[in-house]
Amino acid sequence: MVYLDHASATPVDPRVLAFAGRFLSEEFGNPSTLYTLGLSARQALEEARARVAALVGAEKPASIVFTGSATESNNLAIRGTALRNRKDGKKLLVSAIEHISVLNPMKDLQKQGFDLGVIPVDPAGIVDLGALEEQISPETVLVSVNYANDEIGTIEPIAKIARIVHEKGRYLHVNATAAAGRVPIDVERDGIDLLTLSSNDLGGPRGAAALYIRPGVKVQAVMPGGGQERGLRSGTENLFAIAGMGEAARLSADEMEAEMARERSIRDGLVREILTIDDSYLIGHPEQRLPGHASFRFSRIEGESILLNLDTFFGIQVATGSACSSRTLEPSHVLLAIGLEHAEAHGSVVMTLGRSNVPEDVPYVADAMKRTVERLRAISPL
Amino acid sequence: MVYLDHASATPVDPRVLAFAGRFLSEEFGNPSTLYTLGLSARQALEEARARVAALVGAEKPASIVFTGSATESNNLAIRGTALRNRKDGKKLLVSAIEHISVLNPMKDLQKQGFDLGVIPVDPAGIVDLGALEEQISPETVLVSVNYANDEIGTIEPIAKIARIVHEKGRYLHVNATAAAGRVPIDVERDGIDLLTLSSNDLGGPRGAAALYIRPGVKVQAVMPGGGQERGLRSGTENLFAIAGMGEAARLSADEMEAEMARERSIRDGLVREILTIDDSYLIGHPEQRLPGHASFRFSRIEGESILLNLDTFFGIQVATGSACSSRTLEPSHVLLAIGLEHAEAHGSVVMTLGRSNVPEDVPYVADAMKRTVERLRAISPL
Repeated sequence: MVYLDHASATPVDPRVLAFAGRFLSEEFGNPSTLYTLGLSARQALEEARARVAALVGAEKPASIVFTGSATESNNLAIRGTALRNRKDGKKLLVSAIEHISVLNPMKDLQKQGFDLGVIPVDPAGIVDLGALEEQISPETVLVSVNYANDEIGTIEPIAKIARIVHEKGRYLHVNATAAAGRVPIDVERDGIDLLTLSSNDLGGPRGAAALYIRPGVKVQAVMPGGGQERGLRSGTENLFAIAGMGEAARLSADEMEAEMARERSIRDGLVREILTIDDSYLIGHPEQRLPGHASFRFSRIEGESILLNLDTFFGIQVATGSACSSRTLEPSHVLLAIGLEHAEAHGSVVMTLGRSNVPEDVPYVADAMKRTVERLRAISPL
Repeated sequence: MVYLDHASATPVDPRVLAFAGRFLSEEFGNPSTLYTLGLSARQALEEARARVAALVGAEKPASIVFTGSATESNNLAIRGTALRNRKDGKKLLVSAIEHISVLNPMKDLQKQGFDLGVIPVDPAGIVDLGALEEQISPETVLVSVNYANDEIGTIEPIAKIARIVHEKGRYLHVNATAAAGRVPIDVERDGIDLLTLSSNDLGGPRGAAALYIRPGVKVQAVMPGGGQERGLRSGTENLFAIAGMGEAARLSADEMEAEMARERSIRDGLVREILTIDDSYLIGHPEQRLPGHASFRFSRIEGESILLNLDTFFGIQVATGSACSSRTLEPSHVLLAIGLEHAEAHGSVVMTLGRSNVPEDVPYVADAMKRTVERLRAISPL
């Protein structure tokens, strides 16, 4: 098996399990309780918070709020910030290539009377800074742009975007689910007000995610309850997942430089080999992209057929379109936003690398791709 | 260590870990993906759904929606149902002893224009059925009553409540977080429209919970995103926690009868011995209560001091008030609702049993309680 779909699910790092496993059945205390077991749970929670803060350059650990998923972090960032600051303006902006868990909360706010603008991207997926400057106004309370896109790999010029947002508008939310732990992020250097990152994308367990909230940014809770996480995210803290996320964040920070180089080299090999196939094209930015990310399109065949063939005959797992929408028949809105035709968008394949991938994957995957594309084109009616 | 606070956190059953551990690092696929690893993840997800459905007598597994926490299930049940059915009425009812993750979503709806009524309970914590009948009207779209209360242990006459709700009003939501897996629940027999249950209370991992939604009941999503769980709960499914919840549900169903008898016998021993202490009182209903639940109050001393003494000198963990609010200084609203004075409410201790407890705990805990109460009263200024 060669697993190349780390953007949709990542196996938990064994070192993370070794660290966090004890919070399941031994140190299982509820951090809100007052006895020793609860106090040590609270301590583990705060240690995880500090580790996640360190990964993204947050000066104060308290600026990290733990949630249950990246979807929930995005909801808290978007609905929580827009609703809390609505008296200052009801304009929202998103890039045209945001994840559905950013787009849908935005559309929900639109139904509640907010005005939603969409900022276009260029064919490589880079946000159009001129369009952003034109659309932003003092009534714009929130702009949301992904750090890197999970489908096309393109990394956005976040620091430049932040400067434009802060000149005329209010807050910048950055969904860094696909980027955190894979490229260096620094909320201070980049000027980010709210940042989403998920545990599983770092190699931690599902069930935890975080939202960085710059001190002073006003956000309201979107899921009322017991008032955990400074009142911003109610529910007993999932300590196993949170402590695991903390350890995964620490490992990611420590190993990022080496892992980036390692994955980039494997990725470059895949791109080089796969682009030798006739009528194949790289999707997204050629350089300004996640080091472990490669996405392609192939004329005259469907991404879904490629996916199934690679899985069945070669034990290779890849994605087509975004993982979250791959059960629908609609072409990905991200691929349409970078200017692909419907037919072109349907022929896409996304490969996202992780720790399990090795240089030997390159010839195996490239050969499998060549044979798969050849076979499918031979039977294609197009 | 004698752990007697299972209502606030329960160690994950080792059999659950043995079953569900593989979903962390081996069968880690995203159930929304189309290749084999994703399809087997989808299968495990549906198997867990069937197991949870079976635990509560739900005829169709599809009526179970997985969420990330009981707080989230309560939010989905309450906000999702009220908002979806607001054109049919804007009246809501809750009992006076609901959990804060039920009360706060209700109060949130009140701010949005809903009318919220509170149904009183008697001194044993039983909902006043006459008051319910008086307050309910055809405009009442949702009534929420807990199956059993986690602080006082009292089990509500849910079938009778359901009959009253359905005669005049619309839907009954039941928070069964404290009851599920501990007493037999049957959504058909009991006439429940929406039922919350959590993984950890069953002995499963945190990070999963469920909401049973009777077929035909209209609910809207409260956390927009990728549209997982029939569009009702977005976010990649936390398969480890969900599969663990399924296995915990299966074990709970299989072993419930024996475990109820076992815990009841230990609990009865604790009650008998502890009530020999001067000026000690049982809180909640003497018989109609969770089998593993005992709650007491002691005159002239603070529950918090008892808790710390038992932890420090005897390695015994108990709760005072609800786990979720035990960091505030306010007396529990549940204890005030059953008619306790502030001072009385402050002297409360809650013991909730689980699989780790054994009959030998009775003499040890009873002796520790006696010595602790004696010591604290000796230094009490009251």
